Amino acid sequence: MTERPFRLREAEPFLIRAAEVAADAVQPFFRRSMVIDDKTGGHSFDPVTEGDRGAERAIRKLIHETWPGHGIRGEEFGIENEGARHEWIIDPIDGTRAFICGLPTWGTLLGLRTDGVPVLGMMSQPIVGEQFMGDGESAFVVSRTGRQMLKTRPCATLADAFVATTSPRLFKGLEAERYDALEAQCRLARYGTDCYAYAMIAAGQIDLVVESGLQAYDIAPLIPVIEGAGGIVTSWTGGSVANGGDVIAAGDRRTHAAALAILSGRS
Amino acid sequence: MTERPFRLREAEPFLIRAAEVAADAVQPFFRRSMVIDDKTGGHSFDPVTEGDRGAERAIRKLIHETWPGHGIRGEEFGIENEGARHEWIIDPIDGTRAFICGLPTWGTLLGLRTDGVPVLGMMSQPIVGEQFMGDGESAFVVSRTGRQMLKTRPCATLADAFVATTSPRLFKGLEAERYDALEAQCRLARYGTDCYAYAMIAAGQIDLVVESGLQAYDIAPLIPVIEGAGGIVTSWTGGSVANGGDVIAAGDRRTHAAALAILSGRS
Repeated sequence: MTERPFRLREAEPFLIRAAEVAADAVQPFFRRSMVIDDKTGGHSFDPVTEGDRGAERAIRKLIHETWPGHGIRGEEFGIENEGARHEWIIDPIDGTRAFICGLPTWGTLLGLRTDGVPVLGMMSQPIVGEQFMGDGESAFVVSRTGRQMLKTRPCATLADAFVATTSPRLFKGLEAERYDALEAQCRLARYGTDCYAYAMIAAGQIDLVVESGLQAYDIAPLIPVIEGAGGIVTSWTGGSVANGGDVIAAGDRRTHAAALAILSGRS
Repeated sequence: MTERPFRLREAEPFLIRAAEVAADAVQPFFRRSMVIDDKTGGHSFDPVTEGDRGAERAIRKLIHETWPGHGIRGEEFGIENEGARHEWIIDPIDGTRAFICGLPTWGTLLGLRTDGVPVLGMMSQPIVGEQFMGDGESAFVVSRTGRQMLKTRPCATLADAFVATTSPRLFKGLEAERYDALEAQCRLARYGTDCYAYAMIAAGQIDLVVESGLQAYDIAPLIPVIEGAGGIVTSWTGGSVANGGDVIAAGDRRTHAAALAILSGRS
């Protein structure tokens, strides 16, 4: 086994197949009346749908069949084969709230961490019909119109930057102050973006995504896509977010450095 | 000429054709590097793209060919045949900011006002591949998977409601206070939605959309879709928004009444 056993080209058929089985499980529930469970037992509203669970089951089955020794960590059904060198990370529906609102901005996330490092990842949006994939060294999107390489765009300063976050109201206290200070310097802010904003950094359409309190499955699958397109993903203090945390993702290192200075409290 | 000369079934081929010519004009600019003009001359950022202008030109040409005597009012090129009984309202790309961020949540809006009353409307999203249409009495969506009637869902109280708005930061002063008071009573809030949220009221996925300062072309084409699906659209004081304004759109009259009470300052 090589140091980086999973190159994007070799892994692509598996990722596409995973996107297909997830889509088959999810699509019957999109824009249908559905039962929305509340995982928190009533304290706050955290919708979980049959679509979530069905998609994660389908991807787990595919991993069992393809790589029986690998570990799995998913949003809905927890950890299998803990401690395995290769661990697949699944978020069956990132953006469940977009999903239950009928909006086409959710995605199925699937990534691989080898020795804890995100080495492969995919964001699939089956209604739009596109899969964004990367392995940290290259990235591309497969859509109804074909395949295109992904490349972040240059962005020298925050004054040029498009920034995205799922909701500015998710930040509290000092985090909110710092985010607001950052947003005020940016050219444009966009909300309600979930995983799509990260894909759009890779596609050179958005310059910066800032979020807090992410789980591993929210961000690990997106890191190899952004890095493969030339971008950078760190925590608000410049560390790794392979296990989740407070995230800064950027297409250009200059934008990232400027955002990091504000969000870490250094400026 | 009858009182309501444009029924949805008769108008559908024209609307679909308009969606097609607009899509042909817009799609070459989606997720491409582009020049973004600033209509306000630098005071604030209001992106206008060639896609906007091309789509409006294409729709105007189709209207000229199909109904030469009708009036036209569009976001980019103003008014033609002012005072005509039948006036078409065009927003070539509603959600330009979503568009320039590469997100598939913008739409092309086309509506007809007869004697000032919105009687026909469409929201088309060509990347997702769906057109939402209505005539105030019925509404349906045409997509890659076929045609489906649109029907709003029941929602008895704000505590059950999903509310959407493009950005909570667009409200200022008293408006912001009232919106925040409303949002705090709702079950879920979703941002960054533009025209899609109105379509999702018609589809029974979202219960309430609240926005302020809309132009006629932002809202008039959506009114016959929501009303045709069983919903209601008014201003924050309960009046007509056929000419734009501060908008409350709801799928259920009970939700609408509760939102109106808060936003009008009556409770």
